[in-house]
Amino acid sequence: MTAHRPARIPQPPYYAVVFTSLRTEGDNGYGEMSEQMAELVEGQPGYLGADSVRGADGFGITVAYFDTEENVVAWRRNAEHTEARNMGRKAWYEAYSVHVAKVERAYGWDRDE
Amino acid sequence: MTAHRPARIPQPPYYAVVFTSLRTEGDNGYGEMSEQMAELVEGQPGYLGADSVRGADGFGITVAYFDTEENVVAWRRNAEHTEARNMGRKAWYEAYSVHVAKVERAYGWDRDE
Repeated sequence: MTAHRPARIPQPPYYAVVFTSLRTEGDNGYGEMSEQMAELVEGQPGYLGADSVRGADGFGITVAYFDTEENVVAWRRNAEHTEARNMGRKAWYEAYSVHVAKVERAYGWDRDE
Repeated sequence: MTAHRPARIPQPPYYAVVFTSLRTEGDNGYGEMSEQMAELVEGQPGYLGADSVRGADGFGITVAYFDTEENVVAWRRNAEHTEARNMGRKAWYEAYSVHVAKVERAYGWDRDE
């Protein structure tokens, strides 16, 4: 129906990075950075896909999937990503949390399939 | 600032259940069920908290945290929850995915702390 369906599901095990955040008010460059990070992560080794949503109240969840824990760490250490996180604490977020978790089971359902 | 900040973060390991979904159009009883499930899960053994958001386009992510894999399975087997899932496929969702993952690392940041 629409392009915006849940990310495809590889065979576990793999890793999920759950990033939950509350935005500050105003854009302050956030939109541009957000698009840059979305492009950047797609080129990262072991990146498997992501799901992301933000509500009108500024609360959002992004889940990015990677093949291994090493590649989760490599993404965390990426220089541009590190700079974006620093700017995030300065300007873009009221609060956030990160959970790094090993996916043990995964399944999906789609009305069209 | 607001009540809607990321869920508190216990000491890992524990479990995250990531539910990603695309809603059908119209309510069809979804809102009522959703509130009932949110109340029901709070009484489940080992429930640690949850974060949830849905965008204006009907795409949403809910992440619920449990202490053990056994308690994740117990929630899955809960009769009312099972009935809600069946109704979900009949009426409420275009597509969804579920990832059950063991949290290995977790951290948070809050501007007010």
